Amino acid sequence: MVRVAVVMGSISDWSTMKETVAVLKTFDVAVETHIISAHRMPDEMTTFARNARDNGMGVIIAGAGGAAHLPGMLAAQTTLPVIGVPIQSHALQGMDSLLSIVQMPAGVPVATVAIGTAGAKNAAYLALQMLGITEQHLADKIALFREGQRQQSIESEALLHD
Amino acid sequence: MVRVAVVMGSISDWSTMKETVAVLKTFDVAVETHIISAHRMPDEMTTFARNARDNGMGVIIAGAGGAAHLPGMLAAQTTLPVIGVPIQSHALQGMDSLLSIVQMPAGVPVATVAIGTAGAKNAAYLALQMLGITEQHLADKIALFREGQRQQSIESEALLHD
Amino acid sequence: MVRVAVVMGSISDWSTMKETVAVLKTFDVAVETHIISAHRMPDEMTTFARNARDNGMGVIIAGAGGAAHLPGMLAAQTTLPVIGVPIQSHALQGMDSLLSIVQMPAGVPVATVAIGTAGAKNAAYLALQMLGITEQHLADKIALFREGQRQQSIESEALLHD
Amino acid sequence: MVRVAVVMGSISDWSTMKETVAVLKTFDVAVETHIISAHRMPDEMTTFARNARDNGMGVIIAGAGGAAHLPGMLAAQTTLPVIGVPIQSHALQGMDSLLSIVQMPAGVPVATVAIGTAGAKNAAYLALQMLGITEQHLADKIALFREGQRQQSIESEALLHD
Amino acid sequence: MVRVAVVMGSISDWSTMKETVAVLKTFDVAVETHIISAHRMPDEMTTFARNARDNGMGVIIAGAGGAAHLPGMLAAQTTLPVIGVPIQSHALQGMDSLLSIVQMPAGVPVATVAIGTAGAKNAAYLALQMLGITEQHLADKIALFREGQRQQSIESEALLHD
Amino acid sequence: MVRVAVVMGSISDWSTMKETVAVLKTFDVAVETHIISAHRMPDEMTTFARNARDNGMGVIIAGAGGAAHLPGMLAAQTTLPVIGVPIQSHALQGMDSLLSIVQMPAGVPVATVAIGTAGAKNAAYLALQMLGITEQHLADKIALFREGQRQQSIESEALLHD
Amino acid sequence: MVRVAVVMGSISDWSTMKETVAVLKTFDVAVETHIISAHRMPDEMTTFARNARDNGMGVIIAGAGGAAHLPGMLAAQTTLPVIGVPIQSHALQGMDSLLSIVQMPAGVPVATVAIGTAGAKNAAYLALQMLGITEQHLADKIALFREGQRQQSIESEALLHD
Amino acid sequence: MVRVAVVMGSISDWSTMKETVAVLKTFDVAVETHIISAHRMPDEMTTFARNARDNGMGVIIAGAGGAAHLPGMLAAQTTLPVIGVPIQSHALQGMDSLLSIVQMPAGVPVATVAIGTAGAKNAAYLALQMLGITEQHLADKIALFREGQRQQSIESEALLHD
Repeated sequence: MVRVAVVMGSISDWSTMKETVAVLKTFDVAVETHIISAHRMPDEMTTFARNARDNGMGVIIAGAGGAAHLPGMLAAQTTLPVIGVPIQSHALQGMDSLLSIVQMPAGVPVATVAIGTAGAKNAAYLALQMLGITEQHLADKIALFREGQRQQSIESEALLHD
Repeated sequence: MVRVAVVMGSISDWSTMKETVAVLKTFDVAVETHIISAHRMPDEMTTFARNARDNGMGVIIAGAGGAAHLPGMLAAQTTLPVIGVPIQSHALQGMDSLLSIVQMPAGVPVATVAIGTAGAKNAAYLALQMLGITEQHLADKIALFREGQRQQSIESEALLHD
Repeated sequence: MVRVAVVMGSISDWSTMKETVAVLKTFDVAVETHIISAHRMPDEMTTFARNARDNGMGVIIAGAGGAAHLPGMLAAQTTLPVIGVPIQSHALQGMDSLLSIVQMPAGVPVATVAIGTAGAKNAAYLALQMLGITEQHLADKIALFREGQRQQSIESEALLHD
Repeated sequence: MVRVAVVMGSISDWSTMKETVAVLKTFDVAVETHIISAHRMPDEMTTFARNARDNGMGVIIAGAGGAAHLPGMLAAQTTLPVIGVPIQSHALQGMDSLLSIVQMPAGVPVATVAIGTAGAKNAAYLALQMLGITEQHLADKIALFREGQRQQSIESEALLHD
Repeated sequence: MVRVAVVMGSISDWSTMKETVAVLKTFDVAVETHIISAHRMPDEMTTFARNARDNGMGVIIAGAGGAAHLPGMLAAQTTLPVIGVPIQSHALQGMDSLLSIVQMPAGVPVATVAIGTAGAKNAAYLALQMLGITEQHLADKIALFREGQRQQSIESEALLHD
Repeated sequence: MVRVAVVMGSISDWSTMKETVAVLKTFDVAVETHIISAHRMPDEMTTFARNARDNGMGVIIAGAGGAAHLPGMLAAQTTLPVIGVPIQSHALQGMDSLLSIVQMPAGVPVATVAIGTAGAKNAAYLALQMLGITEQHLADKIALFREGQRQQSIESEALLHD
Repeated sequence: MVRVAVVMGSISDWSTMKETVAVLKTFDVAVETHIISAHRMPDEMTTFARNARDNGMGVIIAGAGGAAHLPGMLAAQTTLPVIGVPIQSHALQGMDSLLSIVQMPAGVPVATVAIGTAGAKNAAYLALQMLGITEQHLADKIALFREGQRQQSIESEALLHD
Repeated sequence: MVRVAVVMGSISDWSTMKETVAVLKTFDVAVETHIISAHRMPDEMTTFARNARDNGMGVIIAGAGGAAHLPGMLAAQTTLPVIGVPIQSHALQGMDSLLSIVQMPAGVPVATVAIGTAGAKNAAYLALQMLGITEQHLADKIALFREGQRQQSIESEALLHD
């Protein structure tokens, strides 16, 4: 089976993006983790994006903050689906990251998820669902995970009533 | 091969979402188009989402405006990837639609694209890229389309110089 | 007399929504508290909303954050009035929650109150006022409460002058 | 049965608020329509709000734009539920109206609906649902109206397929 | 000479509005301080505003947060100039307070200053400048104060160079 | 009696600022109108501001759009009260103008009014109210004008009922 | 003397960016105009940026809209100063373009100017000022142009007084 | 070689602007640091701006917060390029500073960088790049610095894999 690449622009994004990796590992999906800055390592970014499919990637997840160019520039150089995670920025709380990632021009989409930790987790679930289009066992695992979430929510009500 | 479902909350969303359908048809992908309002047709929405995979869908694209609940509620009831298109709203220009679609809680992602027409087109390209993870011929077609876009951009420079 | 249902999407919303319950209890109104996630428990949500009136509810109060779909989806499936409380979100401070709750399409209103704790309290007062349309004793109690607030405000001026 | 008051700050709000009146009339609910400016007619506003219940009102709907003080000031002077409709403003598209109406302090709620026409319609439906807590026939009519909306949505799909 | 009234909606606004009072006292201007909630004490607000001129006030300064109605409602009921200070709110950082105060309709202006502490100080300076139109000694004191500020700024540069 | 200066940064601001002049003329107040660009005519701006009081001005009204520096820079160089009118800008609808004018640092206030035409009118009324602190006849005229507005609002209700 | 490159992502940006070229031509500066899409022509973008200095460029001006990656990606691959012009986008009026361009990470600045036409003109003036650091004749021309602007502003006042 | 001036409106901006100075010193560029408040020291500001070129400055960097007028007013009075750093403000996180700096009218550009510390650093790099148009050794140093950044990014990946 293909692998999922989790890429981020800076080591400081790891505190958010480790959530992505944690989810993917729970589902026993092969993961590659890279720090590739769009602005500091444009050659490495290009090389990575163009070879990702041949190197066995199935989905690319990219986290970035501020003028978050990494997801969009990866998307421009691969035909694999790219998922963008807006990292919460200092001044503008991730609104800049969100708009920089989601407002891509026609022809080069980035699948954008929520700002911050929730988005980092959801990037993983979304990648699993993409792979699950053809990998029924992944879809089944997600269904199981969802059922677990549902049970947890149901049980959490008891806490209120105590 | 699986089909792509294009769903919208109201007939008024069609002027945006027809762009999605047009792109998918260019790529010879089987498409189903539905009007399913999350708020007016919750039963039909549930039925649609839960049976989508069994009915041969591979990806669901949902366009919605304002308090755009359709993409998120579909995503909650299927393990297929759901792509959300924020329709440009009257008062707030689609910022409400964007936030309602993208800020999903952990466990239930929606792959969000740009507001309006660019997003509608990109929803189609993103769906094709998701299917292209395993369907090499689709990935090849996208690569070809990208090359066409590149040529068009290059040629458009001549217009400037006239 | 009918009861008021206080529903929230997650146990983490309780720190806000307990304010709602506290106010309602002060007014000796019967309250039911539930955790029902729109995205994790759509069936329970549907069942709850559709039976709420028959189960003796008069008003439903729903707190939710981020892409806050719970109030709107409950509203779509009951003819009882639904009050939505936008929970303050991490990144966007509740602006996402507010827009996701208030910008409902024609035909399915959610009575939206302020973001966070003030809104949680006001959801309770608003529910009491709705019930007070026909229950004069509740209207009287609210008038009394308001008078108490007025006295408190008047007395607080003395603190300034010390 | 009680009446519904539809109040607006200026004749220029009528192009939006006539939608509220139109919905209420469809449901055969008695309606009173007033122009009461919070800033130009504070005495009339106070008199209106304080006597609304005794004058047979059950719900007050108030539309206002910009620094929209009317809904909140009415709410401060009646124990009836007050529904606020943010009128779309010139410069800020109604974001100012929305925040001025919804961000009320604890103790004095305004039931806020969407900006503009959709909100104006929903103010009427919300009022009907409030009255419908005890007036079963109104709840039944709303259920019927909802079923009509559902049928319309279902039928609109046929238009796509033509 | 006339007095300046400093009014706020709640004792919790004092931590901001005490800055206003402190500046006014430095300039030996007579100050009255009141807590008058627009929503809890509408009668007191009306009485205060309508009698302010006769009671010897020259300028009214009003601080308020959230759906900040106090400055505008005072302005509607006096011909004295009213200065509005947007208190920094919890969720929206005072953007709601700012828009609720500044976006007043034609005919009833509120002189709006910056959000929070800087605005609270500036409300005092602005009041002094209004009084200084005819009271030359106040204008002179402000000129002196400005010169003091200028000296302080000039001297602060030395700190950098250490 | 002192005069009111109406200053704007560009001839294109006149379509908004003529409303200010029109109101002032109705009240028989002496008005001076100038185009003084903060960025193109800094010397003229300084000369104007520093001599305004000696030249018989009582209040300065300044309209500006975008990075609207004119009101604040005038305020920095006079002890007269300065009223700022945020002109509605092309891209950001005047939000940039509003924040550039209102968020002044402590010590140099600008009395900010609403964005656009309503603000332009209110700048005039606010100036009149400032002058009316000591000029009773102006305060009386404003009271009369307000009463006229009130009558107009009352009469406009009849239009609804036709 | 070095040349100025004016680059844009799409032919549709020309209606804005032609203003940049027009200003530069008035100052007799050599200009090169290119359409280089960051997302469609990443190779051409890289080649252009890396060779810009050797090809005789002194400043690069890049206009882009939406998730505007072009200025930042050029800046990442040249040591020449890059000026970014946020093109006014359909839905979000250029706020997305502005944040995507200005919020660059430390080490890779983009000199950002105003949204739309004013920014397009200012990009040219800024480039001229950069070149004018060492080219005194350009600085002199700008001083002359500024003086012309000043005269125009002064003369425009006469129009008001007619 | 020319010097770079780093100017700020207040000593409180130093905690941000010291980052600018630190970068410039690393590159052995002569730096002058000044506190010049646009509102408190307009004469000093004018004198500084008009003489900056003759005093040997090549670039001016100005940091300011809130209604940040300093960069724009300096730019209006010099033909040197002015770089503006939006300081993160208390209430609005620097969005007010950003818009006040970047939205300059045609003819008077300010080269705006990111809000806060990243922007402060980038102001220095941008100044170096401007000087580097003609000073090849500075361009070479920046290229070297960029290569250092690239190496650091590459090495940081190893931290993830531990």
